[in-house]
Amino acid sequence: MTTPLRITVWNEFRHERSNPEVGRIYPDGIHEALAGPLREAGHAVRTATLDEPDHGLGGPVLDETDVLLWWGHKAHAEVEGATVDRIQARVLQGMGLIPLHSAHFSKIFKRLMGTSCDLKWREADERERLWVVAPGHPIVAGLPERIELEREEMYGEHFDIPAPDELVLVSWFQGGEVFRSGCCFRRGMGRIFYFRPGHETYPTYHEPLIQQVILNAVRWAAPVDAARPRRGNSEPLEPLG
Amino acid sequence: MTTPLRITVWNEFRHERSNPEVGRIYPDGIHEALAGPLREAGHAVRTATLDEPDHGLGGPVLDETDVLLWWGHKAHAEVEGATVDRIQARVLQGMGLIPLHSAHFSKIFKRLMGTSCDLKWREADERERLWVVAPGHPIVAGLPERIELEREEMYGEHFDIPAPDELVLVSWFQGGEVFRSGCCFRRGMGRIFYFRPGHETYPTYHEPLIQQVILNAVRWAAPVDAARPRRGNSEPLEPLG
Amino acid sequence: MTTPLRITVWNEFRHERSNPEVGRIYPDGIHEALAGPLREAGHAVRTATLDEPDHGLGGPVLDETDVLLWWGHKAHAEVEGATVDRIQARVLQGMGLIPLHSAHFSKIFKRLMGTSCDLKWREADERERLWVVAPGHPIVAGLPERIELEREEMYGEHFDIPAPDELVLVSWFQGGEVFRSGCCFRRGMGRIFYFRPGHETYPTYHEPLIQQVILNAVRWAAPVDAARPRRGNSEPLEPLG
Amino acid sequence: MTTPLRITVWNEFRHERSNPEVGRIYPDGIHEALAGPLREAGHAVRTATLDEPDHGLGGPVLDETDVLLWWGHKAHAEVEGATVDRIQARVLQGMGLIPLHSAHFSKIFKRLMGTSCDLKWREADERERLWVVAPGHPIVAGLPERIELEREEMYGEHFDIPAPDELVLVSWFQGGEVFRSGCCFRRGMGRIFYFRPGHETYPTYHEPLIQQVILNAVRWAAPVDAARPRRGNSEPLEPLG
Repeated sequence: MTTPLRITVWNEFRHERSNPEVGRIYPDGIHEALAGPLREAGHAVRTATLDEPDHGLGGPVLDETDVLLWWGHKAHAEVEGATVDRIQARVLQGMGLIPLHSAHFSKIFKRLMGTSCDLKWREADERERLWVVAPGHPIVAGLPERIELEREEMYGEHFDIPAPDELVLVSWFQGGEVFRSGCCFRRGMGRIFYFRPGHETYPTYHEPLIQQVILNAVRWAAPVDAARPRRGNSEPLEPLG
Repeated sequence: MTTPLRITVWNEFRHERSNPEVGRIYPDGIHEALAGPLREAGHAVRTATLDEPDHGLGGPVLDETDVLLWWGHKAHAEVEGATVDRIQARVLQGMGLIPLHSAHFSKIFKRLMGTSCDLKWREADERERLWVVAPGHPIVAGLPERIELEREEMYGEHFDIPAPDELVLVSWFQGGEVFRSGCCFRRGMGRIFYFRPGHETYPTYHEPLIQQVILNAVRWAAPVDAARPRRGNSEPLEPLG
Repeated sequence: MTTPLRITVWNEFRHERSNPEVGRIYPDGIHEALAGPLREAGHAVRTATLDEPDHGLGGPVLDETDVLLWWGHKAHAEVEGATVDRIQARVLQGMGLIPLHSAHFSKIFKRLMGTSCDLKWREADERERLWVVAPGHPIVAGLPERIELEREEMYGEHFDIPAPDELVLVSWFQGGEVFRSGCCFRRGMGRIFYFRPGHETYPTYHEPLIQQVILNAVRWAAPVDAARPRRGNSEPLEPLG
Repeated sequence: MTTPLRITVWNEFRHERSNPEVGRIYPDGIHEALAGPLREAGHAVRTATLDEPDHGLGGPVLDETDVLLWWGHKAHAEVEGATVDRIQARVLQGMGLIPLHSAHFSKIFKRLMGTSCDLKWREADERERLWVVAPGHPIVAGLPERIELEREEMYGEHFDIPAPDELVLVSWFQGGEVFRSGCCFRRGMGRIFYFRPGHETYPTYHEPLIQQVILNAVRWAAPVDAARPRRGNSEPLEPLG
């Protein structure tokens, strides 16, 4: 790999503590399951959770974050508006953001999309198969042409998002639906990768291929050392008149 | 033309009343200058302004609007959040939206884009030349390959918007800048066309070619009689297990 | 509807004459099955087939065509290069093109895409379900959120095309694959809509919802009365030096 | 930097030998001027020119090339069709391609675009200013918000290309035109970056900022170690019937 990145993995961290089934799959929380492979790859990884002060994102944390992963589900409403404002500002300045699964309904994802981000869903222990539709994309480097998950929650179209800047993965579900499961967006100087899988009652984030997608996505979403555009009132560069 | 559309032209309507120079150019307000050619084309046009109750958008107005034009500048902050919420909901349901010129900083445009929508600007009586970069697009039907405006305010890149779904016009400015001046976006079932020209101290909306772009854009942004997608919990369409 | 369009339906017209099963489904050829609903909608429809002189596209036919539908399968190689050149030129000038099903491998579609247009396939009498992923798009006006075809040939990803300018429909297949089945492209001043269904051994083009998509697509792909851009050596519009 | 890439710089290499003015600017040919900074950055760089056997691209050269730069102008017609076929195949397999300046009219670029790639032009020693319109893009890493070239050939819209997958740079010209000067395309598994500047009578490729764009573009266009999608007849992955 190349330069290590400063990654913050944010997790709601409620299901793991209230639902023993989830606690068995993710005994240290989804955030630790996500953080592990990123640490092994050499990145500098912090975690942050909803019930910490400032949701774990106070002080310099966001300023020191290159890429932020976000998993939330039942407590989106408890995330403070001021935190959402700060994350949005950081994305526009270049921080990468990777909303996972039910984070489609997070305040920050809806803020950055401008749409409802609504979809179909069903919890029925069914098979999901993610197909690569952009095989040369860095987010699917080293992956086979499809990923199979024996049991997952179904998400179905229409997914109310702006057309992705790049569509990388499309899911097939056993019950008859399809879904745009790997979607790239650019907002300001930041990059966003929405990645569908990861319902809390399945061991999805322990799957090596899923971990590989996330590793690739983190690298793809990392900030570029770009010159900041100047904005506001500007003198002419050419003679007028 | 085909079916008449129900159009609402919204205008801040402050500059015209406080600045005599603007009042001379637009004696009945920018909204009436915009409404005129749309009425002549056979559309059913209402106007609405900031200082009316509910900003003129109360009751059934928005529900009865196919396409909403929006001109605002110095009083964006006075537009009520509840109005912004209702406009956003209507766009996602299919209403067209045409933010004009300084409406790049309107609450509703920023809400739908998810970005800062910031840019460079300069008021220096300089020449603008809008080049068509998508010559087969319906929004430039019947137009020449460029539009010249002898005097306009400059807007320059970087314009902080998501990449447009379709880029139709790019402006050249005498002072040395360029700008993405005609930008199509789809959000939910609605269509948005941002159109740059129209600083209040110039007679831009009296220009026939500018009026033609707006007429075309209104037609392009009109709602399609689309089946509403179902969302939420969904039964399987295929046998599971 | 609005102005009638001049439509040419091109068909290879070989399977219908050599395979009795196909002949039973399309006794007058696939071209007549496609032409019927377009004629009923008021359009001026011609047909043209491979074995006619100049493939039925000689003389003024292409110049007098607003939108060209194309169905071909086993005889792509027999289409003359000069015909492909003329179709490409007409698309760049604004003629709409609707390649259907196995026309993904036609010379004209590959020419306009620049890629191999290869894909997975299987003939196994399986179910296809096309999901609308762009519900406000004019090509799906009046349609439900999905179309079901009880038996079709499977086409699976990766479909080697450039990313569509707009992705409208994604197919689910019973055997486990997905496919980008309704894809919009703009090339020059022309519009192209690739539409997947229509294997010759199934009565797909007799399905009213499939006919509705094609009717909508023809309207969407119709040429816009656009000013032709000037190209080549150009005098400056501003003083130099 | 990271892993060195295998780069081939292809140049027509005719102007430098026939026009003393060009020979003075590029005494070893445009290819050597382009190759120098890429070698200094640690890449493994070959050059190849039109008048070599197989245009310098025979044997294993293309198979051993990660990214191919292409400069051509007056002798596009002399490039053999078989060479164009082989380059196209390699791009679809993942090789990066960077067509420069007048290579907009090269056979390989037109083949991959499917359009005429025509444009306006003028040789009048005028000023060009390239504005960054995608400031977070890796191709503009480390660059200021604009690049100024005191004298260049003008290229003007409409540039007849498919809408770029990402638009990175837009040029302003002194004579009144604009141009999409930095355009990203994906075709198959390969990435293409068209970069406008570089008329042979100006020292454009000696400009450090232009060299930086090319260095960044080479890195961006490098192949990803992607699993090759399987195509053709495919067995079902799920039980049918």
